[in-house]
Amino acid sequence: MNGAESLVRTLLAGEVDVCFTNPGTSEMHFCAALDKIDGMHCVLCLFEGVVTGAADGYGRMSDKPASTLLHLGPGLGNGLSNLHNAKKARTPIVNIVGEHATYHVAYDAPLTADIEGIARPVSDWVRTSADSKSVTSDAAQAIAAARTHPGAISTLILPADTAWTDAASVATVPTQENPETVSEAAVENCTQALQSGEPAMLLLGARALRAPTLEIASRIVLHSNAAMRSELMSARTERGAGRVGIERIPYVVDEAVKVLDGIRHLILVGAKAPVAFFAYPDKPSLLIPQDCEVHVLATAEQDIAGALDRLSDSVGAQSRLPDLESAKRPELSSGELTLEAVWAGVGHFLPEDAIVSDESITSGRGLHPYTRGCPPHDWLSGTGGAIGRALPEATGAAVACPERPVLCLSGDGSAMYTVQALWTQARENLNITTVIFNNRSYAVLHGELRNVGAVPGPTAHDIFDLDRPYLDWVAMAESMGVEAVRVDTAEQFNTALAAGFHSSGPMLIEAMV
Amino acid sequence: MNGAESLVRTLLAGEVDVCFTNPGTSEMHFCAALDKIDGMHCVLCLFEGVVTGAADGYGRMSDKPASTLLHLGPGLGNGLSNLHNAKKARTPIVNIVGEHATYHVAYDAPLTADIEGIARPVSDWVRTSADSKSVTSDAAQAIAAARTHPGAISTLILPADTAWTDAASVATVPTQENPETVSEAAVENCTQALQSGEPAMLLLGARALRAPTLEIASRIVLHSNAAMRSELMSARTERGAGRVGIERIPYVVDEAVKVLDGIRHLILVGAKAPVAFFAYPDKPSLLIPQDCEVHVLATAEQDIAGALDRLSDSVGAQSRLPDLESAKRPELSSGELTLEAVWAGVGHFLPEDAIVSDESITSGRGLHPYTRGCPPHDWLSGTGGAIGRALPEATGAAVACPERPVLCLSGDGSAMYTVQALWTQARENLNITTVIFNNRSYAVLHGELRNVGAVPGPTAHDIFDLDRPYLDWVAMAESMGVEAVRVDTAEQFNTALAAGFHSSGPMLIEAMV
Repeated sequence: MNGAESLVRTLLAGEVDVCFTNPGTSEMHFCAALDKIDGMHCVLCLFEGVVTGAADGYGRMSDKPASTLLHLGPGLGNGLSNLHNAKKARTPIVNIVGEHATYHVAYDAPLTADIEGIARPVSDWVRTSADSKSVTSDAAQAIAAARTHPGAISTLILPADTAWTDAASVATVPTQENPETVSEAAVENCTQALQSGEPAMLLLGARALRAPTLEIASRIVLHSNAAMRSELMSARTERGAGRVGIERIPYVVDEAVKVLDGIRHLILVGAKAPVAFFAYPDKPSLLIPQDCEVHVLATAEQDIAGALDRLSDSVGAQSRLPDLESAKRPELSSGELTLEAVWAGVGHFLPEDAIVSDESITSGRGLHPYTRGCPPHDWLSGTGGAIGRALPEATGAAVACPERPVLCLSGDGSAMYTVQALWTQARENLNITTVIFNNRSYAVLHGELRNVGAVPGPTAHDIFDLDRPYLDWVAMAESMGVEAVRVDTAEQFNTALAAGFHSSGPMLIEAMV
Repeated sequence: MNGAESLVRTLLAGEVDVCFTNPGTSEMHFCAALDKIDGMHCVLCLFEGVVTGAADGYGRMSDKPASTLLHLGPGLGNGLSNLHNAKKARTPIVNIVGEHATYHVAYDAPLTADIEGIARPVSDWVRTSADSKSVTSDAAQAIAAARTHPGAISTLILPADTAWTDAASVATVPTQENPETVSEAAVENCTQALQSGEPAMLLLGARALRAPTLEIASRIVLHSNAAMRSELMSARTERGAGRVGIERIPYVVDEAVKVLDGIRHLILVGAKAPVAFFAYPDKPSLLIPQDCEVHVLATAEQDIAGALDRLSDSVGAQSRLPDLESAKRPELSSGELTLEAVWAGVGHFLPEDAIVSDESITSGRGLHPYTRGCPPHDWLSGTGGAIGRALPEATGAAVACPERPVLCLSGDGSAMYTVQALWTQARENLNITTVIFNNRSYAVLHGELRNVGAVPGPTAHDIFDLDRPYLDWVAMAESMGVEAVRVDTAEQFNTALAAGFHSSGPMLIEAMV
């Protein structure tokens, strides 16, 4: 058994059995090992941003790490942006990055780069294996690190000679530790805040946004007459009819400040104190009122469900019934394809158990109210703010949950960053319906320029608009083997969306909004 | 004048008048400044790998830096791979990376990342401006650093508040320093090596591969009965009829070892001692014979032309005539579209003054002999080994030299990494003919797997082959506004290539090889 084989066997022993990959020469022994050993589902992507974004989507939906296989520093570099998103989402991922043979690095061959340096800003754990005998124990520790609750990014760098030299027998992967229990003081402190008689809000993030946990939070706020919100962006929110609905802290600073106005106690449950997505002249960074006290019930790393359960006990809310969304779908629109018409169509047709990967930016701002009464579904959003996330994320989510329909919502600008994901969707025949909001611009930037007090002139217009030349999304999708249709009216959109949800493979709808 | 305006004015004062850009919110004041100040040519790219690859192509052809405008850590991350290539090519580039306002970074908003940490592995100079008054002097130093002979990567990180706050008056950009003169001892040492009577070789890289410098080198080796080669990859080689032809050190280790066999003195002229592109079991990293002495005439940073001139003097070669290529073009092929047929077509039609951006990997290995007698042209190759380079590089080269025809040669696999470049080519109506060698695989990896002694099994086959689904390059190009044609025979290829060279805008040829 060589190092590459010991790596594959260790990954499988650690239940890491999916590998999103874009390999190169330095990973050849790993590829050869995949041919010798059964059990690893290899998913080829044509660009590394798709690899890492798919691993993010997979991890969010399966709560366990996929592996990635990347080619030296530049391959890792191409995947950096979606690793940034995944790190902020606390998604478990095990990156395997090939490196030159240990003795070859000193010669500064063309692909030589500071791989650890590139990895560190987007990784929670980084290691370069020293020799082939260390590969299996290093891999076991990489898996254990990635499984740190609720998830972390491990990057294991494997010099080529560690892959082709004889290895040790497969190491045992440490069992996953339970998340830390929060202290009694934290529960007591939050109890007092809720019982103070002053306005309080629970701010939920991370695993607090799973359905059973949301029910406990709902009981607490109903009983305590407190407010409840989720962070603006969440890795995964379980929502829909029969579940607790939760509104987000708004993106626009003035709106967020208004939502938080008057709150005297903000209780953080897997969330961080809300801050502006960007800074603007004469606007605050921290969005809470100056006299608001912040209490941490549980961090994202701690046992959130247990903490909420104890808080519910402590405030006496255990017999309360949570406030559940009732089933309700919007009527279909007709005529012009407005954004509202798209939102209505999505709300009308979203299938039960759907996974929504949302990167619709400006075009999707009204989607939440239109879908709150849909059958139960999961909503994935952009925790790290880096665009080019949704198409790969949808790809990975569909690999994790092949039996569930995936809806991918993307602006035309953001979809272009990692458009290569469509090819993998076709290759794996994934059940993904992608809606491209083709507004022929970086619409968000027109608004942001006004936000900073500037009026777009000809140069700004020119670099925010994507209509010269026109991006033909139907041709784009078809070039990569994905069936596609362009829609100009609400009726056409509704027909296409229903067809997308009914078909088993990928489909793309170019919505001319 | 705010910091953003002082930045634009400093760039223009430093003759940095092209900006390849993919901006976001934190760069809004820079965009607003571009509307107020004339003189900056902004080129919008839909992905940052295109931005940095285009800046590389621009810098290689213009010998002065373009600027890039990138959005925080993830935007820079997306551009990392082509910055790696540019750094290895010693291309001058000034990266401008937006950052959160100084006071906002501490709040860890979603897009917060260690931008300096991401920048360092691919930059020669990194700085974060502390305040708006520092922006102009920091920018002046960034330009000066990028202009370090022959070129370097500067990354200037600008917190948003440094852009929107009042600035200092525009700083003076230091004039470019001349490259260092090599020592008399270096010339003397190389003279002795050449006059030793033992087999010697000049290995040329960097600016040694420009036509006038190659002529001096040719005189020296003819006079001294020495050999001459160029590094495997070069940022830019001036070649063709009436110029000195030079062969490269081969990519394949065994072939390279054979070329260097028996050489007792290797004289480095802007080059490094030749090393294997990758390490392989039981093959050497360093390709020269054990008893070969390495002499450095000039590093890439030094005055190469001056050093060669002095060496020529010292060995008494000044009256020699260099060995120039005679004009010669191959005959066109007919029938099956073999690789040889493509090479013959390229050699037959390549226009005078063409720029060839070559990332054809396995498909292009025979191109050099077919084009050595073409009219004078420039050849750009992959100095850093990271793929996804050619389409952006061709884009930037065409921006730098709008009057010259650009030929972009790419494998299907490598073209997919930064395919978004086609949109910018259409938008700017750039004179680029792109040939995609559609062999429906990562062909190089099949060979590499055999090189490491493994036989491709079903899994390796599956992740090296790109035929499931078929990538339709005509639809891909047309989706981004680029005219395209698929060719299956030599005749069709020849017709398409001639048409591409005759048309003024971009065109793509999908060569089914």
